[in-house]
Amino acid sequence: MVKVGILGGSGYGGSELLRILLFHPGVKLELVSAGEHAGKRVDRVHPNLAKLTDLKFEGVSDPRALAGLDCVFLALPHGQGMEIVPALPSNVKVIDLSGDFRLSDAETFKRYYGREHAAMEEQRRFIYGLTEVNRNQIKEADRIANPGCFATALELGLYPLVASGLATGKVIADMKTGSSGSGARPAAGTHHPKRANSFYAYKVFEHQHQPEVEQLLASVAPDWSSTSTLVLQTHSIPVVRGIFASIYVTVKEPKASASVGELFRDYYESEFFIRLVEGSPDINWVKNTNFVDISLAASGDTVIVFVAIDNLVKGAAGQAVQNMNLMFGIDERTGLLLPGSNP
Amino acid sequence: MVKVGILGGSGYGGSELLRILLFHPGVKLELVSAGEHAGKRVDRVHPNLAKLTDLKFEGVSDPRALAGLDCVFLALPHGQGMEIVPALPSNVKVIDLSGDFRLSDAETFKRYYGREHAAMEEQRRFIYGLTEVNRNQIKEADRIANPGCFATALELGLYPLVASGLATGKVIADMKTGSSGSGARPAAGTHHPKRANSFYAYKVFEHQHQPEVEQLLASVAPDWSSTSTLVLQTHSIPVVRGIFASIYVTVKEPKASASVGELFRDYYESEFFIRLVEGSPDINWVKNTNFVDISLAASGDTVIVFVAIDNLVKGAAGQAVQNMNLMFGIDERTGLLLPGSNP
Amino acid sequence: MVKVGILGGSGYGGSELLRILLFHPGVKLELVSAGEHAGKRVDRVHPNLAKLTDLKFEGVSDPRALAGLDCVFLALPHGQGMEIVPALPSNVKVIDLSGDFRLSDAETFKRYYGREHAAMEEQRRFIYGLTEVNRNQIKEADRIANPGCFATALELGLYPLVASGLATGKVIADMKTGSSGSGARPAAGTHHPKRANSFYAYKVFEHQHQPEVEQLLASVAPDWSSTSTLVLQTHSIPVVRGIFASIYVTVKEPKASASVGELFRDYYESEFFIRLVEGSPDINWVKNTNFVDISLAASGDTVIVFVAIDNLVKGAAGQAVQNMNLMFGIDERTGLLLPGSNP
Amino acid sequence: MVKVGILGGSGYGGSELLRILLFHPGVKLELVSAGEHAGKRVDRVHPNLAKLTDLKFEGVSDPRALAGLDCVFLALPHGQGMEIVPALPSNVKVIDLSGDFRLSDAETFKRYYGREHAAMEEQRRFIYGLTEVNRNQIKEADRIANPGCFATALELGLYPLVASGLATGKVIADMKTGSSGSGARPAAGTHHPKRANSFYAYKVFEHQHQPEVEQLLASVAPDWSSTSTLVLQTHSIPVVRGIFASIYVTVKEPKASASVGELFRDYYESEFFIRLVEGSPDINWVKNTNFVDISLAASGDTVIVFVAIDNLVKGAAGQAVQNMNLMFGIDERTGLLLPGSNP
Repeated sequence: MVKVGILGGSGYGGSELLRILLFHPGVKLELVSAGEHAGKRVDRVHPNLAKLTDLKFEGVSDPRALAGLDCVFLALPHGQGMEIVPALPSNVKVIDLSGDFRLSDAETFKRYYGREHAAMEEQRRFIYGLTEVNRNQIKEADRIANPGCFATALELGLYPLVASGLATGKVIADMKTGSSGSGARPAAGTHHPKRANSFYAYKVFEHQHQPEVEQLLASVAPDWSSTSTLVLQTHSIPVVRGIFASIYVTVKEPKASASVGELFRDYYESEFFIRLVEGSPDINWVKNTNFVDISLAASGDTVIVFVAIDNLVKGAAGQAVQNMNLMFGIDERTGLLLPGSNP
Repeated sequence: MVKVGILGGSGYGGSELLRILLFHPGVKLELVSAGEHAGKRVDRVHPNLAKLTDLKFEGVSDPRALAGLDCVFLALPHGQGMEIVPALPSNVKVIDLSGDFRLSDAETFKRYYGREHAAMEEQRRFIYGLTEVNRNQIKEADRIANPGCFATALELGLYPLVASGLATGKVIADMKTGSSGSGARPAAGTHHPKRANSFYAYKVFEHQHQPEVEQLLASVAPDWSSTSTLVLQTHSIPVVRGIFASIYVTVKEPKASASVGELFRDYYESEFFIRLVEGSPDINWVKNTNFVDISLAASGDTVIVFVAIDNLVKGAAGQAVQNMNLMFGIDERTGLLLPGSNP
Repeated sequence: MVKVGILGGSGYGGSELLRILLFHPGVKLELVSAGEHAGKRVDRVHPNLAKLTDLKFEGVSDPRALAGLDCVFLALPHGQGMEIVPALPSNVKVIDLSGDFRLSDAETFKRYYGREHAAMEEQRRFIYGLTEVNRNQIKEADRIANPGCFATALELGLYPLVASGLATGKVIADMKTGSSGSGARPAAGTHHPKRANSFYAYKVFEHQHQPEVEQLLASVAPDWSSTSTLVLQTHSIPVVRGIFASIYVTVKEPKASASVGELFRDYYESEFFIRLVEGSPDINWVKNTNFVDISLAASGDTVIVFVAIDNLVKGAAGQAVQNMNLMFGIDERTGLLLPGSNP
Repeated sequence: MVKVGILGGSGYGGSELLRILLFHPGVKLELVSAGEHAGKRVDRVHPNLAKLTDLKFEGVSDPRALAGLDCVFLALPHGQGMEIVPALPSNVKVIDLSGDFRLSDAETFKRYYGREHAAMEEQRRFIYGLTEVNRNQIKEADRIANPGCFATALELGLYPLVASGLATGKVIADMKTGSSGSGARPAAGTHHPKRANSFYAYKVFEHQHQPEVEQLLASVAPDWSSTSTLVLQTHSIPVVRGIFASIYVTVKEPKASASVGELFRDYYESEFFIRLVEGSPDINWVKNTNFVDISLAASGDTVIVFVAIDNLVKGAAGQAVQNMNLMFGIDERTGLLLPGSNP
């Protein structure tokens, strides 16, 4: 049994880690922290878990006290992980769900996250946890920077086209997310009277997931990266869960949908969590699950890739557990056979 | 032209007053205040009004400066009206949308609103603005305490049964409201990720609209009041606008639906804004309007009255303007022929 | 391993049975029928199940062919079960999710379901599957009439008050349900443009779940039944899943909330799936789960019981599996530790 | 007073025409047809209009009987207008909300609408009713083909960039619509249990609004049309009203947002119904109104235009009335000062 702790268990990332890890047959969940709720029962903050756990939130004043754990998930606000990681006992494996350790370039980090990075030395030890692409490195890693939610959907949609050298020129990624992506704290953008009937764009030309996508694609296809541009635009959907990506790619020569479909099957056929679907994916069918639903269409030199994921599962906690499974030699699917529902 | 001001124009009550008064042919809207937004264009806070007004919010430091107005609407948080009203020039008519002046009993006020009343002397001048019941007094009034949203739906649903002496015993009022009833400020109960899939009860046995309903019913039927009990229970619907009331009344002798229908027709036939409908009303058909849709059913000694209103229109700003029309001798419907939409 | 079949696997009841039974460690799902989809893969109708099952829908022309099964779930439209059950091999246990076998009185059945009952002889073999109340009979049963969704919520909310003899007089049950209760077939009442902003009452004084509640309560408290009235009124919430019941009960003598809470603890303390919560339950916390969240309030002689369930789980498929577990000597919770999610 | 009729008054286009025309001070609404509802009161189909009209639906067996009208709005399903128009009295002006008369090429019509055109001779008399672009022709027209909802948003977003010659190469138009765009008839895609939590793409590379946009752009910028490609992709949002367009344009030389903003101000400054907004538009602020909210961003050679409209107003009935006003010499805004609401 892997002895596991969650730092930051009161937000939505922590909530989903709890939902998964409490039922993971290879895990013993030993600790959940949430500074502001220390001493409170977990099910007071997450009433969905009543009768399913008696855990209480703890405060963790000294990270060195975590030495008894095998693995720590960090589900903390951006910026807190880079304070804590250097102080963690070196035997404890780390999976960070925040953006703190995804970017290898300090300047880029500063530009997109608005602060100096406090632990770039530590960053070098981190592997970018896009499971389907970096699986072998993840198996050997003891530090994982778990990808962002938009980044996961976009990278998995683009990877076959870019890695195969088929894509060229500008990529337009029109991204949409549900309100849970904004976190558990009430704010103007998630005020129900406004959000319920809204659809709007935000973070125009400046979303912080852009550089991690560029970095990942550069690692798998340096050529593409030097000659192409990525336009990533995020929008808000009035739904709670789900990311939907519409990715418009120009290909070097006109392709039929069938041949693009074949390309994706070559790359993803053996991936359990990737489902190549007909027509369009729908966030409705991936909600609460770790699945990535992808469909494709082509006309002339344009290929459209549609991707749907649950932002909190494959886009956060689910992929984190998928990575943990790999790091500890457990079957990748363990604890993640979460069936979606209809309706 | 009636020269009008709105104090508190940045919340939802103020927003609806603006939507109505800007297009009211008998009104000149001279001033809208919102302390925190003073100097800002109104359409920065209410983007729906862009191109429809060039008004800016003002700060009002001294109420005496409002002497040039004929009428002031107070759309302020509870507790602020009772500070301002005593300082208002006596020639200015006042319509208060808050709960400050609805209750004639200081103890009851304190119990339900959690504070001492600061201006009970002023309260005596206020008429309770339930238009269809208190129309004659409203015509002569210069101070109106506009009813609460739940109270409006419940009072109009109960009035014929209580005033006619048909009701007896305990009344169960199961009330449901959309999220706009919680106001424009983000809060835990209106955080979209939670609210969008929720339904729950709140303020069990302690809603502040209960005493104003009891007071109104006592005024029209003292007997009922002394022998009966009102159970008012509020719930939250995951929709933006609308109140739906299911009112369960025991009647003195078994009634058929037809005869109860006749009773309601007797009371409401000439009321433009009350629509007696077949089947069930639906908040969908009254949204954005000043209409009150009512239907009835009876079986044995039980009568159920269903009422649907828009909480921000008939439940707040619309009824306030309806009252203003009466106070200034204008046709009651003026400015209020807001058609709902399908869908 | 219990060999199980589902007749009627394309609707929402069938969909939920699939979601649960495919992952039930004590079950081998051998057959799913859906006449109109015979031959089609299950995941074409339920895309949420892609990668999780390779089952195909079958047509079942002769019920006698099911003799190899241990248990059949009927998730068919009302009226079909009573045609099929008499032809089923007698060794096959049956759990019927429809209303066909809940009522022991043929006249009442005809009045509420609008047709003659075709198999009243068979009905006598059926046990009403309200697990927490009829557990011992269910363990011995080979025919279960699974309760209706509204009935489950209402019965579990009323049971302690009625069985203890505390309730008296008229009970008002104000019930609300999400749109999935209307089934998988598009209809006027579930057309998104209308439903999304609606709230309305339906089936006034005539809901078909009323007689099964009366029958259950009569079985546990004949006295209550002969002196009391139940008013059950259903409403539609613009949300997909969830039933919320607000049950207003008059008690024989004034009670404090604390003592009513104690009563419910006495009845339900050892029930895993019943959670007594503070404040109000919320359908948000039970969605996708088999839990029943209940809270209580009392003032004077009025007790309000609030109940929240997922209409498709505890209100249908979940309770059906809970009953199957009992019938086959399996731990009642097996396959049903479905954690809800936040958000 | 313009004497007006509506053919097809029971759908959502007809519903919105009613909402607007009943309150239009320059219009006398003489007839509303709806074959299946002939003889029924309009407010039985549109309960939002109860107390606001006593009109009844009529059946129109012979279009020649409409000779007494000045103007007929056709809000019929695609394909019916081209049967009726040839039989209409020539003195009656026609505004067709369907796609029947938008395309001047019979082959293109057949390809996108799946049927032969029955009245191409009549089509030559029709002016494409994109008010802001074709205003002068509309003033002189007696036959208007009212633009499609997606087409309106896309054309108004692209027009300044294309007409000015700034745009080059491929345009990506990522379009999203609410459920009312699917019409008033229940269908699988608008079944609430599915739609409420969904987001998906549909009509991949084949939406019927594509050719009308290409035709309009070709008319204002033949050069662009011969060298560029338009990729129009539609998606479904789980909201009732609103279209949001994210339009990605490559410009001939890198531009700053400010200079693109200036371009749009040059084109649209005097347009009452076009509002150039900061940040992003939001369908929340245009719902129920005739406004078109547009914002812009630029980086390198990429310009993004965001457009929000109400699909049923500016995207259908509102623009139709705007065109009628022009055709009859009435101020363009008359009857269309519909304020949106907050919330």
